[in-house]
Amino acid sequence: MSVRLYNCRILTMKDDKIIEGELWTENDRITYIGPSSDVTDKSFDREIDCKGNIVMPGLKNAHTHSAMTFSRSLADEYCLNDWLFKAIFPREAKLTPEHVYWFSKLAYAEYLSGGVTSCFDMYFHKEASAKAAIETGFRHVFCGAANDYGGMEELEGYYDSLNNLDPLVSFIYGFHAEYTTKEENLRFISDLAHKYNAPIFTHISETKAEVDGCKERYGCTPAVLFDRLGIYDFGGGGFHCVWFTDEDREIFKKRGLWSVFNACSNLKLASGITPVYKFIEKDMNIAIGTDGAGSNNSLSMFREMYLDTVLSNIETNNAAAVDPFTVLKAGSTGGALCMGLKDSDVLAEGKKADLIMIDMNKPSMQPENNIARNIIYSADNSVVKMTMIDGRILYEDGKYSTIDMDEVIKECNKLKKDLA
Amino acid sequence: MSVRLYNCRILTMKDDKIIEGELWTENDRITYIGPSSDVTDKSFDREIDCKGNIVMPGLKNAHTHSAMTFSRSLADEYCLNDWLFKAIFPREAKLTPEHVYWFSKLAYAEYLSGGVTSCFDMYFHKEASAKAAIETGFRHVFCGAANDYGGMEELEGYYDSLNNLDPLVSFIYGFHAEYTTKEENLRFISDLAHKYNAPIFTHISETKAEVDGCKERYGCTPAVLFDRLGIYDFGGGGFHCVWFTDEDREIFKKRGLWSVFNACSNLKLASGITPVYKFIEKDMNIAIGTDGAGSNNSLSMFREMYLDTVLSNIETNNAAAVDPFTVLKAGSTGGALCMGLKDSDVLAEGKKADLIMIDMNKPSMQPENNIARNIIYSADNSVVKMTMIDGRILYEDGKYSTIDMDEVIKECNKLKKDLA
Repeated sequence: MSVRLYNCRILTMKDDKIIEGELWTENDRITYIGPSSDVTDKSFDREIDCKGNIVMPGLKNAHTHSAMTFSRSLADEYCLNDWLFKAIFPREAKLTPEHVYWFSKLAYAEYLSGGVTSCFDMYFHKEASAKAAIETGFRHVFCGAANDYGGMEELEGYYDSLNNLDPLVSFIYGFHAEYTTKEENLRFISDLAHKYNAPIFTHISETKAEVDGCKERYGCTPAVLFDRLGIYDFGGGGFHCVWFTDEDREIFKKRGLWSVFNACSNLKLASGITPVYKFIEKDMNIAIGTDGAGSNNSLSMFREMYLDTVLSNIETNNAAAVDPFTVLKAGSTGGALCMGLKDSDVLAEGKKADLIMIDMNKPSMQPENNIARNIIYSADNSVVKMTMIDGRILYEDGKYSTIDMDEVIKECNKLKKDLA
Repeated sequence: MSVRLYNCRILTMKDDKIIEGELWTENDRITYIGPSSDVTDKSFDREIDCKGNIVMPGLKNAHTHSAMTFSRSLADEYCLNDWLFKAIFPREAKLTPEHVYWFSKLAYAEYLSGGVTSCFDMYFHKEASAKAAIETGFRHVFCGAANDYGGMEELEGYYDSLNNLDPLVSFIYGFHAEYTTKEENLRFISDLAHKYNAPIFTHISETKAEVDGCKERYGCTPAVLFDRLGIYDFGGGGFHCVWFTDEDREIFKKRGLWSVFNACSNLKLASGITPVYKFIEKDMNIAIGTDGAGSNNSLSMFREMYLDTVLSNIETNNAAAVDPFTVLKAGSTGGALCMGLKDSDVLAEGKKADLIMIDMNKPSMQPENNIARNIIYSADNSVVKMTMIDGRILYEDGKYSTIDMDEVIKECNKLKKDLA
């Protein structure tokens, strides 16, 4: 498959400059970015007149539980602890691979329609979502989801099998959280990090109660604990990071760890507001995720990026507390690097063709005082005109090339009855 | 024009029930809502198979400055006072009717694509936006925008002329704010309220500094002051209401005044977070608006409704602080009643045909655990399949029937150069 995108404006995300011209792809890679050039001797499978629309790297959903689309609007009345133990865990106990397969497909459809080209996904029945991802053509990075209730023994097997299954699929070590993982298991995770020189990811400092509990158990915050146990000796990071102390941020900064923000989920579950500006002040590695649809409830990266930009304004009493372009970088380039997709971070020749087209004819994208700011402050899924992963156009003008939405909707509404 | 919508699920917003069946319109009115019935003896100009999609009242943007689309992404670095005096007022001084005409059209395009069927608009050059509204077919309710810098003398003239211009256009008395309107002018407004038995609207308690200033000048909050001056003797309300005291809420409750929330603008300008739950606890009259595109920066009512539902969770440490259906009512029915559109509040026979269709095939609307909650927690403009005002379909499947988007975009980008 080779595609020529012409008459486009390219926001490579290497910087905030916009290149007018063309972008070509061949198979999974970008082969050319630059001014319109003589293409009479080239042939492409498709040539698309982009009519001045913006082409940029796909957004990266750096923390999600894709198959949790089953729980959208299902239990909106709980804070995190009750939500997990009363509403979610009992239903998750009933989940089969078939549930995960179909509800993952529903999530991929939502990602594609929202300009998301890869997700960093922590969930069960990984073979089922791998199958759904490969069929869809979606780039799925698994994160280990082990805790005291299960999953520890399977981690090494997944590391081997999922990293050798398909170019679209990969696996990174992770565990659920300190409060669900006893010290013996934390040491097991640390041993894995050292055995494989591997980064480790986990939920961290999502609620105040979690941090208080960790202090009671270990006399320190989760970040300090993990650092002491050697869990972060080869990198990685944490999801949420709402209640980080300055010391936690110092540890993450020193080790180059990734802080992944999930603003919507933190608002919905009353967990708190992450002071994003403090992470940016320290020039830390940051990325953005939606968390699962049960606690968001959408999977929109635009809404996340908007909130990560504006929510700090209240605490700081400063309308410019967070630079919007820095957040756009976190939502695209940062996410890719966080989840180990070093070839999907920016648009450049030789990089993966994981990209999206933003429809500049949508009223919310006009006038063009500042295009990047229009995206951060005003965009939603409606501005996504096209989504390409690995050089394949999977979503274009509201239509999916690899997903049968009627079938997905029918199956999901049938399967949700098992989980009522 | 007569339209038959069949195979639809109708959320009338009289309550949270969903009626399966049909909705018919003739000219500007709804003529039938109910089960599929024998229509062999009826003819319609259009019959639309809604394929199970949701039909509901249009959203009402109950506080906006439509033509401020010129300032989208233009001055994102200021808090309210500096933003107004350094970035906005100097540019507004250069605005001509031509600017207001085209930038209003851009706003109408965004409203229609976001399921908004009317706006409560406070701005200048009202004849220019009235022309744009009538050409578009958009329902535009003007709010008086007078303050010490101008507009007082024109108020009565507008009240007369704009209330007799076109069925799509109406005018309600209003003034900018206490901090821009001296006591003599506030008394002038109160006299108008009494002369016409008319409701009055204004910006109120948007920032802490505004309330502090009012206390210095008058020894009381703006709500107490306006109440004392008789401004609210015939109803009305206020925009923002972020820093309301319990006494302010008591006054608004007692008089049945409308509190209009603008969460995005308040976050963006670092003004504060409105404790929406306190207004709902008192069963007050509430509505929702986007404010202008300079301080939002989108005109999405979905984002507003989402934030009005979740933002209270943090202060209350309660994931169910605000009932989502109450917010959906505020964003549709409440807004209509706030701006005097008593026939556009719910879907019923005899009511205005101001309605929208929600595309239930969008992944963010699935599965159907709770449709109203899907709309509040997960919807954005991408789920709007059709927008009808006064019985006319103005937006359908991404296309406008009365707006030439290419022309609007061209004119707006040309005209914005005057305001750089």
